Amino acid sequence: MFQTFHATSSPAQGPARLAALRAALAADGLSGFIVPRSDAHQGEYVAARDERLQWLTGFTGSAGFCIVLPDAAGVFIDGRYRVQVKHQVDTGHFVPVPWPEVQPGEWLREKLSQGTVGFDPWLHTADEIARLEAALSGSGIVLRPVENPVDGIWPDQPEPPLGRAFIHPDERAGETSEAKRQRLAEGLRTAGRQAAVLTLPDSICWLLNIRGADVPRNPVLHAFAVLHDDGRVTLYTEDSKFDEPTRAHLGEHVTLRPPAAFVPGLRTLQGPVQVDRKTAPLAVTLELHDAGIEVAEGDDPCRLPKACKTEAEIAGMRDAHLRDGAAMVEFLCWLDAEAPSGGLTEIDVVTALEGFRRATNALHDISFDTICGAGPNGAIMHYRVTDGSNRQVGQDELLLVDSGAQYADGTTDITRTIAVGDPGEEARECYTRVLQGLIAISRVRWPKGLAGRDLDPLARYPLWIAGQDFDHGTGHGVGAFLSVHEGPQRLSRISEVPLEPGMILSNEPGYYREGAFGIRLENLIVVKEAAPLGDDRKQLAFETLTFVPFDRRLILVDRLAPGEREWLDAYHADVIAKIGMRLSSGAREWLGKVAAPL
Amino acid sequence: MFQTFHATSSPAQGPARLAALRAALAADGLSGFIVPRSDAHQGEYVAARDERLQWLTGFTGSAGFCIVLPDAAGVFIDGRYRVQVKHQVDTGHFVPVPWPEVQPGEWLREKLSQGTVGFDPWLHTADEIARLEAALSGSGIVLRPVENPVDGIWPDQPEPPLGRAFIHPDERAGETSEAKRQRLAEGLRTAGRQAAVLTLPDSICWLLNIRGADVPRNPVLHAFAVLHDDGRVTLYTEDSKFDEPTRAHLGEHVTLRPPAAFVPGLRTLQGPVQVDRKTAPLAVTLELHDAGIEVAEGDDPCRLPKACKTEAEIAGMRDAHLRDGAAMVEFLCWLDAEAPSGGLTEIDVVTALEGFRRATNALHDISFDTICGAGPNGAIMHYRVTDGSNRQVGQDELLLVDSGAQYADGTTDITRTIAVGDPGEEARECYTRVLQGLIAISRVRWPKGLAGRDLDPLARYPLWIAGQDFDHGTGHGVGAFLSVHEGPQRLSRISEVPLEPGMILSNEPGYYREGAFGIRLENLIVVKEAAPLGDDRKQLAFETLTFVPFDRRLILVDRLAPGEREWLDAYHADVIAKIGMRLSSGAREWLGKVAAPL
Repeated sequence: MFQTFHATSSPAQGPARLAALRAALAADGLSGFIVPRSDAHQGEYVAARDERLQWLTGFTGSAGFCIVLPDAAGVFIDGRYRVQVKHQVDTGHFVPVPWPEVQPGEWLREKLSQGTVGFDPWLHTADEIARLEAALSGSGIVLRPVENPVDGIWPDQPEPPLGRAFIHPDERAGETSEAKRQRLAEGLRTAGRQAAVLTLPDSICWLLNIRGADVPRNPVLHAFAVLHDDGRVTLYTEDSKFDEPTRAHLGEHVTLRPPAAFVPGLRTLQGPVQVDRKTAPLAVTLELHDAGIEVAEGDDPCRLPKACKTEAEIAGMRDAHLRDGAAMVEFLCWLDAEAPSGGLTEIDVVTALEGFRRATNALHDISFDTICGAGPNGAIMHYRVTDGSNRQVGQDELLLVDSGAQYADGTTDITRTIAVGDPGEEARECYTRVLQGLIAISRVRWPKGLAGRDLDPLARYPLWIAGQDFDHGTGHGVGAFLSVHEGPQRLSRISEVPLEPGMILSNEPGYYREGAFGIRLENLIVVKEAAPLGDDRKQLAFETLTFVPFDRRLILVDRLAPGEREWLDAYHADVIAKIGMRLSSGAREWLGKVAAPL
Repeated sequence: MFQTFHATSSPAQGPARLAALRAALAADGLSGFIVPRSDAHQGEYVAARDERLQWLTGFTGSAGFCIVLPDAAGVFIDGRYRVQVKHQVDTGHFVPVPWPEVQPGEWLREKLSQGTVGFDPWLHTADEIARLEAALSGSGIVLRPVENPVDGIWPDQPEPPLGRAFIHPDERAGETSEAKRQRLAEGLRTAGRQAAVLTLPDSICWLLNIRGADVPRNPVLHAFAVLHDDGRVTLYTEDSKFDEPTRAHLGEHVTLRPPAAFVPGLRTLQGPVQVDRKTAPLAVTLELHDAGIEVAEGDDPCRLPKACKTEAEIAGMRDAHLRDGAAMVEFLCWLDAEAPSGGLTEIDVVTALEGFRRATNALHDISFDTICGAGPNGAIMHYRVTDGSNRQVGQDELLLVDSGAQYADGTTDITRTIAVGDPGEEARECYTRVLQGLIAISRVRWPKGLAGRDLDPLARYPLWIAGQDFDHGTGHGVGAFLSVHEGPQRLSRISEVPLEPGMILSNEPGYYREGAFGIRLENLIVVKEAAPLGDDRKQLAFETLTFVPFDRRLILVDRLAPGEREWLDAYHADVIAKIGMRLSSGAREWLGKVAAPL
């Protein structure tokens, strides 16, 4: 079982540690220090060693930070974690701060008239610190990069992970690492840059056609790397992560060096060196500046090419989704049989689902901790069930299950919302609108050049006209056997990145009614050139990768437009055609009924 | 009759004038000169005196420019005018250049190795010249502002217009000029600007609650003005345009000065002076710079407030649309009776429509020359029928009529596409998709903050999924008894201006098949706070102003979503309720049939 359900922290742990940190700060002449959730690689999952925020405060969310001052300790958390934080931190010592409504600069100005606030330059990007500095300008507060004082007071801090790296075969990647490196090096030469610094694990894994095991859920290697303008790469990570075949797979133009060699290596580069201000630790820029090397701002050069998947990657994703779809259908069939008994809990459901995925004999990991919310828990967007929160799956309510898997050929992410008993007309109306939003994105064709921002309203329109909406993006980028959340592609009001063929995204509109129920429906989709139609204008379109039925008991058929109903019937026919033969006979029979034409 | 149908130019006029211009340029030591369509006020309609492009080349389009060099004269025209230009200019002497595909800088570099190209700084904005200068950087070509040489060789060039200014009553405007001026002056003071230069006629008319008659179709006064930071205005235009009551209406804080006093007036201002680089002639900036006065870039301060109409303006627009809607219904009823005879021409249709509007006894002007395209002419987006192009309204084809009126209480703009006989299934399919786009915009509610760009895809979606699209924006801003095209609000892929309550826009998706038919459907809509619904999120929505039926013979009812059909039936019921009692008995009976539930 990958997923666990115990609470990993307690509010009681915080006060003593906070006192120890304050003592350390005072000894260093600091008035404060910022403890972020993020590590040097800006991922959503961090290694145990990097769980500094949780260790200090008890808060386990995937985003946030704590600012410790002599008389105040603010835990900055976004809308997803407003309730959770109150249960996880000792609010006598830590004050939850609603963020981004309250900005750290504003809070600091209010709490501190003057002084020096330290931060660890390996845990913050250049953009992040520049924003904070701008917000503090004219105040008596200055920021100073320091050695991380939390590491000094954490006696049993785990060592950095030493997960085994492994080969991601060229046939799966669809392009050799050598070809990728040459392609990117040419871009550097054209831009007049001598090298680019890589700090994102998925960028490095993509570039080198390897994977790793340093953090849960994401099959990535923790490392830094420098791409030189001749296509060579210097890779900074522990040699012990590599067995001989994997080291050989790196090839002669990739040099493996220990982590401690990274900073000295940076300081010997010839400028201009390309650094991504949005993703690289500020320390990288500071070290280059300090060594007198010119820094050129620019995107991580792997990010966009990685997002545009090769035919081989897309083929792998299709296979992974058929395998995963079969496991999902087995699960839904089981759920339909078991849920009416009233004996299931959320943890039972999560456990059963992982079991069906494990039965594929291909499960590398789950791609994130399953979100399984019964009734009102469905309205908590990032709900992770624990032994403490575990809820009975009640009758006449909705059950929201958002889950995914890592297979060697692809990453999945799927949400279905299921009726247990009769959840009522209002739930069906909302479900139908969310489904209409998903269908709108599934069917759209658009002129090349549009960004996710331009399509996002199509998913919201059915809700908007009913005075409803959802407070998250319509979709995020998804990696191919990499992170289930990747950039730069998004379907979101704030995404200006043009959609390009090969980009994989989620399509996941939702609707949430606090204290009552939550609905989310999610398929993965891939951008492709649209097949000729009509005036044969050059258009892009989405191919759907996910094949799992929607709950027909929740669909108000007479609300659907003719084209929506046609799409849904065709989709369900595809589910039967593609998944049917992969199922147990019981599940196949069940699927035939639930995926029949409306 | 406002609209005329004669051709106002001939290709034969060009060559001699071109030779005379080249001689004048040579005498001034210039290698070239740019002759734009625009005047100093950047409007779509210009005074006869400013028709320099037409006088020189014969081209009558509403946008474009000619660059005259010793050995080449390029007429730059956009996609709307590719066909028209070939008939209007002598292509032995003038070469049509597809623009913006070919940029003027690029063309100049190709045609001219070095030399000085003159331009009239009163006819180009600062942004326009800056772009061209950037495109010429590093070439041997320099730009030089000069006195307009066309004016020197045009013997019978008309004098500037002296149209009568008149009062736009405060009750119609909904806010006194004094209040507007104080509101804007406060904005200037907050921004630390001492004055703002106004060069757009509709901005000046809006600010002073007056209207004018210097150009056809737009009831505006040609003038320049300076708004001072204490709310006073200096207005530069001919005193003879004002009768005593209108002059008195300006009030004591508006000083009327002759046009010749504008430049000296500019040169005595205290900086910083706000100038809009996107709309003001470059000459304004040059004069200020030359006098050592600081120029501060900033939007024309009237543009956004003008776009957000007052309750009084919206009420006037509603009234104007009911009056205009009745005229339109009489017209459509007449057309339905007459068109099947086969004896009508496009000019007959335009003439009849203007007659129905004139019969309201309230018609101030038409708001633009009616676009009336039968059959394939409907696919020419900005078709203006002339005696030469006039086409018989054939059987079994579509007729597109895009027209509007200026009334003292409001401006209208409406397009309907009508079936004459049976235009076939394909036409009905396309018509239905265009209608679905219009309905999508009509029904939308959205969270405050979105721009026209965010809603534009909703109007295209029904076409996109059929492999179709249209190559113009979904909607433009519309003035209240002002220009039928106004900024900054738009429903367009390129519009980032957030939509705000009171903004009036057109909602006009279309579909065009060259050589076959054109479809466009257009209502005017106004942004308002949405009525509470659903979760009562703060939303904006559109109220429809136009009430004229759609042609039910062209609607494939079984393609409509339930909500689309409900909207259309409710709209048609509104048309009957609001327009019915204003009609002749014959038209009322006709309306009852064509606007019955589908």
